[in-house]
Amino acid sequence: MDRPNNIAHQQDLDFMSQALDLALRSEAIGEVPIGALIVDENGQILSMATNLREKNTTVIGHAEIIALHRACKKRKSWRLTGCTLYVTLEPCFMCAGALVQSRIARVVFGAYDPKGGALGSLSNLSCDARLNHNFTVTSGVRSEECGKILKDFFKKKRKTK
Amino acid sequence: MDRPNNIAHQQDLDFMSQALDLALRSEAIGEVPIGALIVDENGQILSMATNLREKNTTVIGHAEIIALHRACKKRKSWRLTGCTLYVTLEPCFMCAGALVQSRIARVVFGAYDPKGGALGSLSNLSCDARLNHNFTVTSGVRSEECGKILKDFFKKKRKTK
Repeated sequence: MDRPNNIAHQQDLDFMSQALDLALRSEAIGEVPIGALIVDENGQILSMATNLREKNTTVIGHAEIIALHRACKKRKSWRLTGCTLYVTLEPCFMCAGALVQSRIARVVFGAYDPKGGALGSLSNLSCDARLNHNFTVTSGVRSEECGKILKDFFKKKRKTK
Repeated sequence: MDRPNNIAHQQDLDFMSQALDLALRSEAIGEVPIGALIVDENGQILSMATNLREKNTTVIGHAEIIALHRACKKRKSWRLTGCTLYVTLEPCFMCAGALVQSRIARVVFGAYDPKGGALGSLSNLSCDARLNHNFTVTSGVRSEECGKILKDFFKKKRKTK
């Protein structure tokens, strides 16, 4: 698979820190620790989200999907042209597909997901020329911290079972 | 791409007729004419949906996503084990990815979508052995009727522009 172009700026590191805070908040409410936020073309935060799959008992409760939905509501449009999504884990096919649909400009993610990731691991929907929209990806930003939160979470879960 | 196993039973034709009715209702409210419904293991309808992308101004307004969300709410679970989704058009990557996440048992769709379909056209997520769930697909059920509604809709749209 093609590995995307990895240039992270200071702003990216800062927004990823906020996404990490959201991941911790996600864990605190009993969800898998993943956090996501969407920033517009002026660097203003449009939406933030934790995972909500358990709390909302819905398959569409991934942090990216909730962040996308909230950003659409804020913009009063299903198109998020010019926006950037920050997320602590590489998006799955559902979320990567939603990002294509939203016409987002860029995605910055933390840890790779070798088992389910669709922006570099299993596939890369961001640069599939057959789709009607492509976008830039910056990957591996604060990947160790992003990955550690998840590993620790699943380790704790296995212990309490 | 692998084309899935195509055996449609009378029940499939009947549920696809209902999905076609939902597609027409979708058009009547100003949406792209696509309809979807989810049936449980006993043949009971759990949820029905039209497209709602324009009306709800959200990128997650595809009929399949709304049908999945409503079925989760009905079941009080994000898992839809044993269920079947009927939809008039081949699902895109977002919707096909959501179907994988939901652990659905089977998908029956009408028309193929050569530009964006992720259950046989551009890819086939239903039988990707790397993913943590696979499901059965029956495709091309009432495909001419399902495709005609869409073709007529876009023809009308071009004329009124």
